[in-house]
Amino acid sequence: MPVGPGDDAAVLALTATQAAGVVVSTDTLVEDRDFRRSTSTAADVGVKTAAQNLADVAAMGARPLALLVSLALPGTAKVAWAGELATGLAAECARAGAVMAGGDVSEAAEIVITGTALGTMDGRAPVLRSGARAGDVVALAGTTGRSAAGLALLESRLLESHLLESRLPDPDLPEPDGVTAGLVAAHRRPQPPYPAGPAAAAAGATAMIDTSDGLLRDAARVARASGVVLDLDPGTLPVSDELRAAAVALGRDPASALDWVLSGGEDHALLACFPAGVEPPAPFRVVGRVLPAHGDGAHVLVDGAPWRGGTGWTHFS
Amino acid sequence: MPVGPGDDAAVLALTATQAAGVVVSTDTLVEDRDFRRSTSTAADVGVKTAAQNLADVAAMGARPLALLVSLALPGTAKVAWAGELATGLAAECARAGAVMAGGDVSEAAEIVITGTALGTMDGRAPVLRSGARAGDVVALAGTTGRSAAGLALLESRLLESHLLESRLPDPDLPEPDGVTAGLVAAHRRPQPPYPAGPAAAAAGATAMIDTSDGLLRDAARVARASGVVLDLDPGTLPVSDELRAAAVALGRDPASALDWVLSGGEDHALLACFPAGVEPPAPFRVVGRVLPAHGDGAHVLVDGAPWRGGTGWTHFS
Repeated sequence: MPVGPGDDAAVLALTATQAAGVVVSTDTLVEDRDFRRSTSTAADVGVKTAAQNLADVAAMGARPLALLVSLALPGTAKVAWAGELATGLAAECARAGAVMAGGDVSEAAEIVITGTALGTMDGRAPVLRSGARAGDVVALAGTTGRSAAGLALLESRLLESHLLESRLPDPDLPEPDGVTAGLVAAHRRPQPPYPAGPAAAAAGATAMIDTSDGLLRDAARVARASGVVLDLDPGTLPVSDELRAAAVALGRDPASALDWVLSGGEDHALLACFPAGVEPPAPFRVVGRVLPAHGDGAHVLVDGAPWRGGTGWTHFS
Repeated sequence: MPVGPGDDAAVLALTATQAAGVVVSTDTLVEDRDFRRSTSTAADVGVKTAAQNLADVAAMGARPLALLVSLALPGTAKVAWAGELATGLAAECARAGAVMAGGDVSEAAEIVITGTALGTMDGRAPVLRSGARAGDVVALAGTTGRSAAGLALLESRLLESHLLESRLPDPDLPEPDGVTAGLVAAHRRPQPPYPAGPAAAAAGATAMIDTSDGLLRDAARVARASGVVLDLDPGTLPVSDELRAAAVALGRDPASALDWVLSGGEDHALLACFPAGVEPPAPFRVVGRVLPAHGDGAHVLVDGAPWRGGTGWTHFS
């Protein structure tokens, strides 16, 4: 990047191949809707902001290049909070291979953070939601349900400690422990599998989406855009011992872990469809198949039937 | 744009020449800090959002290509408001030659709008704030002070009509009249001279800035970044009969119009420096000259002396 923050704008130098498909996306996080200062540090929120935006670029099959972030926050918010946010942004950009290309700070009544991610197709065609065809396989890179389980654990612990109502500006965050520590970390710092995006495009993926709102809901978006039905095989979904242990810790049936996997959002796994003869590239693994559109209006099936449990994820509020 | 809103991201196809310098910038507008619903329609705010972001790209010498907008607003805000905002965004993008390349809508306690603008240098080198040299001329494209005068007129009229406190969600806006109508329009819908940016780069401008915070304040930024002094000639500044009439209408000395021109922000005129032998391209006109750095720390002079009046513009709050 020849010019960075400090001038009116940043300048990115792209090659002709990179420029043939420049991918851009923007997304906003609002305090108490998309994150809470009682359960996430500013650095956590920085990681989440970067992950959420860069994953949208990867979901087109693009390689992330740059992130811009505009931060609005109350005058009462500590300067330190913005600094720690930047630390988290930088860390996740580095993990994705992207640069921070500028930003802006304003004053507002609550914290509102908008990221804009840029990426390149590196000469490949973008992978849309609308290209899935009957006969394709459905594959998943990354896992789902871990962020939702981590949030459920945090909320349970917060209720116990009455932290939920206290809204301390810089709380001692509850510490994760034992088998569930990884789930709490997954909620605070989602880790999208960025290289899987370009790998899917290179392998000939027919459709792809960032599962930011939950597997069922985002699979339905692909199905609707493509005019097909996605049939998921529950035996292949990432229902782990870790998730079952979390269910037990919360006094639930361990089998209910499947609800998190199907409906929990904000893990930013990538869901893609591939032609039947194509081996999905690692880390994708097959989790279902694409069927012709039915007459009954169902877009997603689980083991051949509509799912009767949760139907999606509308943030934690 | 091969892919528009509806997928995870938009895709822009750039030529190799366009890609060699891709310019990106982001900027946020917050309700009651950067605009008021009592004095601006949603379409006005859309124009202002687009203008503010696209002007930052032009100030690097780039040609605007695309705009992304993320809107956070209360659930009580009318859907119609967002629709009218989009109308204003589209109108100003069209004026700048840019496309709307996507967006995002969230819920928040107050209206927060973040734009991200993309442009291209078309193969030229970006024009930074830091390149001004003693002996250069200082030139201005567009006018300054008109937005601030328009706001002063609106506030005066609002106070009269008690609208300022009523915060109606969809007020009957006060109608501008007579000689001041253009000033109120300039406040509601700033019109940056976008083509002047690339024209300045092509002509060999040594430094450039978007005068979003006022002529004196933004000239000082160029001076500091370049290690020089900018000396403005008040006789060449855009102090118009229109501004003098506004001062009189508000019961002020007509000579005070110069304060608006020097300190009023949000007109998004472009201030640039050119080597002495270069004729600044239209619509730039010479308004001063660049001097070597003094020992006294002054960065901007007016007619050879530090200005004793206003020193800048920190939004209307």
